[in-house]
Amino acid sequence: MHLINVNKNVMDDNEHIAEHNKELFDDHNVFVLNIMSAPGAGKTTFLEALLPLLSQKYRVGVIEGDMFGSLDADRLQKCCNIPVHQINTHNICHLDAKMIHSSLDNFDLHNLDLLIVENVGNLVCPAEFNLGEDKRLMLLSVTEGDDKPGKYPVMFRTADAIVLNKIDLLPYSNFNMDNFVKRVRQVNGRAGIFEISAFNRTGLDSVLKFITDAIDSKK
Amino acid sequence: MHLINVNKNVMDDNEHIAEHNKELFDDHNVFVLNIMSAPGAGKTTFLEALLPLLSQKYRVGVIEGDMFGSLDADRLQKCCNIPVHQINTHNICHLDAKMIHSSLDNFDLHNLDLLIVENVGNLVCPAEFNLGEDKRLMLLSVTEGDDKPGKYPVMFRTADAIVLNKIDLLPYSNFNMDNFVKRVRQVNGRAGIFEISAFNRTGLDSVLKFITDAIDSKK
Repeated sequence: MHLINVNKNVMDDNEHIAEHNKELFDDHNVFVLNIMSAPGAGKTTFLEALLPLLSQKYRVGVIEGDMFGSLDADRLQKCCNIPVHQINTHNICHLDAKMIHSSLDNFDLHNLDLLIVENVGNLVCPAEFNLGEDKRLMLLSVTEGDDKPGKYPVMFRTADAIVLNKIDLLPYSNFNMDNFVKRVRQVNGRAGIFEISAFNRTGLDSVLKFITDAIDSKK
Repeated sequence: MHLINVNKNVMDDNEHIAEHNKELFDDHNVFVLNIMSAPGAGKTTFLEALLPLLSQKYRVGVIEGDMFGSLDADRLQKCCNIPVHQINTHNICHLDAKMIHSSLDNFDLHNLDLLIVENVGNLVCPAEFNLGEDKRLMLLSVTEGDDKPGKYPVMFRTADAIVLNKIDLLPYSNFNMDNFVKRVRQVNGRAGIFEISAFNRTGLDSVLKFITDAIDSKK
């Protein structure tokens, strides 16, 4: 396939810049969390719930990736009183390492402990682009169905934490938790699986612990 | 951006093959409907509900696009007793015209009135690739949120029909219908907007009418 050859060069370039980003983050002792999901899985609502808790302990910044507009960045700026920088990717369906690198001018890395990247809503492409992050957290919402790990294995395979959101909608869906966990384990044996409702603010404690443990172990 | 130059060649190639596909479909009087959405919006459940109705009147075939596996194709083959052909795109996040062209060997176009393409679950990339289809139908589910038209305008702009699925979950979400319609109209003034629950089989009549009218007007 033509696209695969094209992608190889793009990927090599990306990997090079991602390594450079990683060095920069490590030098400044900034922990970077890349958050990914399909559109509408609840990344922004999740961050609205989590950021007030995280920012009690850490100096937090957010890079917000969207193809167009700044709806999510506006929401986070409103809720959380932290620096948020918007990247608009236009017709590109993911963030890449170069976009992240360019965005860093907007932050004072010496005064940051945690940089959260909210990637473009897409269950495919973002997983293929290393940004130089420390950990990857992905969200899936109950209403997307329990069959997704087998259909989008690249995303599920590379996640360090898999957050199942909208568990308040379990009674109104045919989502089968046992099937979901079984399908996750077929592609990823190590990631923690967290059940939450960002909307109702339930189940957040264990995700918060995952993130704080990861940050503290980098220090 | 590097990717944009790369994409231009890919897009020109795709457009050329798409035109060829379109001629082939027109010569055989086959109507082609390209169905797109984010992962988990309910495309397959929608087709499970619609195909038994459509196949009463038309000879129908389905091309099923997934990155990996054949879960959806298996479901459709089980429900509907029609020819279904699976395309696995592996790391590519959309179907393209060449994949569709190669897949056509699996169908007898002389004995087909309607070819439905269930695209890869992705709210970004599939919209950029013309397959040679007659109409585009996109699904959005209530649980994805009413803010999506502004965030994914390319998909919403090119749709001929916008199907809002999972309206049975409206009471459990903060989806605002007026805001949604307003945001759709900012990017697309012409597409019909249909409210359905594929799960509960409600609201399907008007979508069915949209499809049958479109097929009949091609004849």
